[in-house]
Amino acid sequence: MCRWLAYSGTPLLLDTILYRPQHSLIDQSLHARMGVETTNGDGFGIGWYAPESGSDTPAILRDVGPAWNNRNLREIAQHVKSPLLFAHIRASTGTAVQQTNCHPFRYGRWMWMHNGSIAGFHQMRRELSLAVDPRLFLDIEGTTDSELMFFLAMTFGLEDDPPQAVARMVGHVERTGREHGVADPVQMTVAVTDGTAVWAFRYASGGTARSLYYSTKVDSLRALHPDAAYLRELSEETRLVVSEPLGDLPGAWNEVPEHSYGVVRAGHDSLHPFTPVPA
Amino acid sequence: MCRWLAYSGTPLLLDTILYRPQHSLIDQSLHARMGVETTNGDGFGIGWYAPESGSDTPAILRDVGPAWNNRNLREIAQHVKSPLLFAHIRASTGTAVQQTNCHPFRYGRWMWMHNGSIAGFHQMRRELSLAVDPRLFLDIEGTTDSELMFFLAMTFGLEDDPPQAVARMVGHVERTGREHGVADPVQMTVAVTDGTAVWAFRYASGGTARSLYYSTKVDSLRALHPDAAYLRELSEETRLVVSEPLGDLPGAWNEVPEHSYGVVRAGHDSLHPFTPVPA
Amino acid sequence: MCRWLAYSGTPLLLDTILYRPQHSLIDQSLHARMGVETTNGDGFGIGWYAPESGSDTPAILRDVGPAWNNRNLREIAQHVKSPLLFAHIRASTGTAVQQTNCHPFRYGRWMWMHNGSIAGFHQMRRELSLAVDPRLFLDIEGTTDSELMFFLAMTFGLEDDPPQAVARMVGHVERTGREHGVADPVQMTVAVTDGTAVWAFRYASGGTARSLYYSTKVDSLRALHPDAAYLRELSEETRLVVSEPLGDLPGAWNEVPEHSYGVVRAGHDSLHPFTPVPA
Amino acid sequence: MCRWLAYSGTPLLLDTILYRPQHSLIDQSLHARMGVETTNGDGFGIGWYAPESGSDTPAILRDVGPAWNNRNLREIAQHVKSPLLFAHIRASTGTAVQQTNCHPFRYGRWMWMHNGSIAGFHQMRRELSLAVDPRLFLDIEGTTDSELMFFLAMTFGLEDDPPQAVARMVGHVERTGREHGVADPVQMTVAVTDGTAVWAFRYASGGTARSLYYSTKVDSLRALHPDAAYLRELSEETRLVVSEPLGDLPGAWNEVPEHSYGVVRAGHDSLHPFTPVPA
Repeated sequence: MCRWLAYSGTPLLLDTILYRPQHSLIDQSLHARMGVETTNGDGFGIGWYAPESGSDTPAILRDVGPAWNNRNLREIAQHVKSPLLFAHIRASTGTAVQQTNCHPFRYGRWMWMHNGSIAGFHQMRRELSLAVDPRLFLDIEGTTDSELMFFLAMTFGLEDDPPQAVARMVGHVERTGREHGVADPVQMTVAVTDGTAVWAFRYASGGTARSLYYSTKVDSLRALHPDAAYLRELSEETRLVVSEPLGDLPGAWNEVPEHSYGVVRAGHDSLHPFTPVPA
Repeated sequence: MCRWLAYSGTPLLLDTILYRPQHSLIDQSLHARMGVETTNGDGFGIGWYAPESGSDTPAILRDVGPAWNNRNLREIAQHVKSPLLFAHIRASTGTAVQQTNCHPFRYGRWMWMHNGSIAGFHQMRRELSLAVDPRLFLDIEGTTDSELMFFLAMTFGLEDDPPQAVARMVGHVERTGREHGVADPVQMTVAVTDGTAVWAFRYASGGTARSLYYSTKVDSLRALHPDAAYLRELSEETRLVVSEPLGDLPGAWNEVPEHSYGVVRAGHDSLHPFTPVPA
Repeated sequence: MCRWLAYSGTPLLLDTILYRPQHSLIDQSLHARMGVETTNGDGFGIGWYAPESGSDTPAILRDVGPAWNNRNLREIAQHVKSPLLFAHIRASTGTAVQQTNCHPFRYGRWMWMHNGSIAGFHQMRRELSLAVDPRLFLDIEGTTDSELMFFLAMTFGLEDDPPQAVARMVGHVERTGREHGVADPVQMTVAVTDGTAVWAFRYASGGTARSLYYSTKVDSLRALHPDAAYLRELSEETRLVVSEPLGDLPGAWNEVPEHSYGVVRAGHDSLHPFTPVPA
Repeated sequence: MCRWLAYSGTPLLLDTILYRPQHSLIDQSLHARMGVETTNGDGFGIGWYAPESGSDTPAILRDVGPAWNNRNLREIAQHVKSPLLFAHIRASTGTAVQQTNCHPFRYGRWMWMHNGSIAGFHQMRRELSLAVDPRLFLDIEGTTDSELMFFLAMTFGLEDDPPQAVARMVGHVERTGREHGVADPVQMTVAVTDGTAVWAFRYASGGTARSLYYSTKVDSLRALHPDAAYLRELSEETRLVVSEPLGDLPGAWNEVPEHSYGVVRAGHDSLHPFTPVPA
């Protein structure tokens, strides 16, 4: 199990997003409330876009120790601003604790992070690997189900139509699962971005999907909390999607419905049902 | 807060002591029950004597990540036997997470590990450092209160009379504390060994000391549990001292009384009151 | 490029093999003489058998920093004895610096380490991966050509006939290379062991193979150097195979001929020509 | 021995300064030309000011492995711009390889890095530590001579008059050395900054000081190399101070004379003789 956070909006110091909230992601690395495990100490990663650098690929910082005691993470958080941040804390379910197994994963401009797992992954790994486009295969660096889901989604057209590609990826894993006698293989919340929009998915082949929340629109929050000065500094388009709420501000957090996905992009956020495409 | 374990007795595979018990120290690194913090993921260390190597100094293995996911620790545990093992998992209270701050600390044949803290240590650090014998000062490598307590105890004659040296060390810290307006500076459980005997202390200047337990004598345990085959393989002199019990075997664990210390050595274990020597 | 060492014979403190020689492997990690690179600082690993532990699998200690400054390696070396040791220092040619890419690799009782590379590996990786027995595929943890060569050799019967399996593995890689337009894909010195014998291979598809040396028989060395006391402590069957000589003792080191392999085992060492089996 | 680099001037992507030059600092981590050791693989650090973050303290990124294979360093370099960068690669002379021993060191707005050593440091460490202002002592985190030189310079007024404070620090160490029978204790090149100016010192108590170079003024370089497009993008005030030249551009590099220091600041760089103040 893992926890993650996606931020999009007014460029902020990463510290404001990562460390300052009452029940911040860093706090969740020691004391998650809604997860299967309370501790997420098997590595972490953040990825952010830095338009002023002239690069359209995100910067990725990953390390194998816990986030809560990592000094480099704290330094970066206190000195870097970004309009789009992914952050992830990991609880390994057995795969090696190494940078190449830490989220977010990157391919060109794209980033991907995941909470959940593929049931029976060990026995399906080879077959799922074979389904990856051979030109992409070369860039698989780790051994997690999460990275493989990313490369499968790339194979199925992520760059052209993210919801469709993720739906085909899930359909493919579910069929492969059935062939190996695994009834409900997919358990996931996933965030993916190309630096302009963020897509966030919540889905489980069976049972309840992992928790996922999105923040209320900034103008509505301002109306609810006219005294909260920091809300005045945020643009209308600022949005957070998180594994669990970062605090207790009334009205601030909304559950993403199961089997659905949201799109966060300038001017028109939206929420849609999510249905796998049978393979 | 930290957790530790001291084993002395029949040479065993470290795995048997570290990983196999129901509520093992490795399990405590994720889920401690009796500590201030449930997670002890800020580094770990083990130290063991290897008489067959021809060396009378203990081997020390320390690393900065959590014990629960460390592969080298597991490898060593599955391939090394020892008659005397110290193991420690760390929850930093602010000092850097680095090998030189991980327990056990070593000086020649001696090893030391600690759970607890010196209240107000930051303001007393310089003065306590000055009290260390200048010839020993050179070997201080880290920045913890625990290592400094070890070097103070060495200064006060640990090699000649451990209980007396620890009592003088505590007395010295308490006096220094009073001079800095800290009423109750010492909170500690400490284990120290020279490879032949183990001394274990439980003490707090004020309030309740951190938890500490010792295992029941092997022959009494055998009488209580005649069906437990593994007990038959242990010598009479086998003994564990631990921050919290490693399992629920009835009759196996006894609390070390507050303000006392025990000595584990071939043939004559003993328990004594502990009183600081005023400095 | 990397450097490695295989020791088999009288149980010795690892320190004697790893640190004490004049031009030890640890020295080679900073100052290799015969390699493509002088520095081998991208991780290291050792593997040793510990018969007294009751386990017939070797213990593996690997880490991602340089060997020359690793304290845990030094501790283990000074406190552990073994009759059979593999040691490897790595200079990455681009793949990630992580434990799962460090040699030696292990499968059950077997260990494998490699110096060299598969030319064009990036483009052949997927196809070579597919040739691995699906039941073995699940245990591939890293991303190196070296580990994949091990799993291919396992697929081709390493456990039954090591020289034949390695010859088939090389033949398979060479055919795959030709299909991808790589004329001379294999450059290797490889050591493999099951804990009783050691096989060491030196081969290149084209050009000169990486350097490889074996130590002179102990009784011959004693005759050459009657004053060297330490030679008297070694059994007749003690043998070292190394990427480069560990010192300048006249008569001590012999080059393994190109395109050949040696077998080190109790009572009857031998040297043979090595020819790939065309796939 | 170590190597370092100080950059001040037009805000540049760190990559341009750290990785792009022909004989970059990253290249020097594997292949230094002018140092006592060719390999500087015992940790590294960078520190940079990020005015846009609203913080006037520099960000510090340090790690214990070699710079040449560190992915986080490469990521930061490719996505962060700064007008003032310190970078340091370390070759330990025995002290522990840990973040708190990596340069640059920071205190508030100030950064410090050092190449060289205090001869006889081990025996003088305690006495030099005592000379540190007690209020500063608490913030010493590591065990190097370099960090202690920084805290001594702070004690002697670094924030008010850097050249004077460094001269007093050197005078103090030289006197302490003499008292311990060390004739020529100080060997140093040091860079220190408060975020607005950079001071760089080259000095040895005896013999030749470690190498140190500064870059030619940008307008003079442009006149020498009218075809070098990248020079046109740099402001007049851009300056590099380095342990060894980053390339072979004729006329680009000037040796800092022994026993001297330079000041780099907007509008008026200058070079001065350096004489320790006897303590």
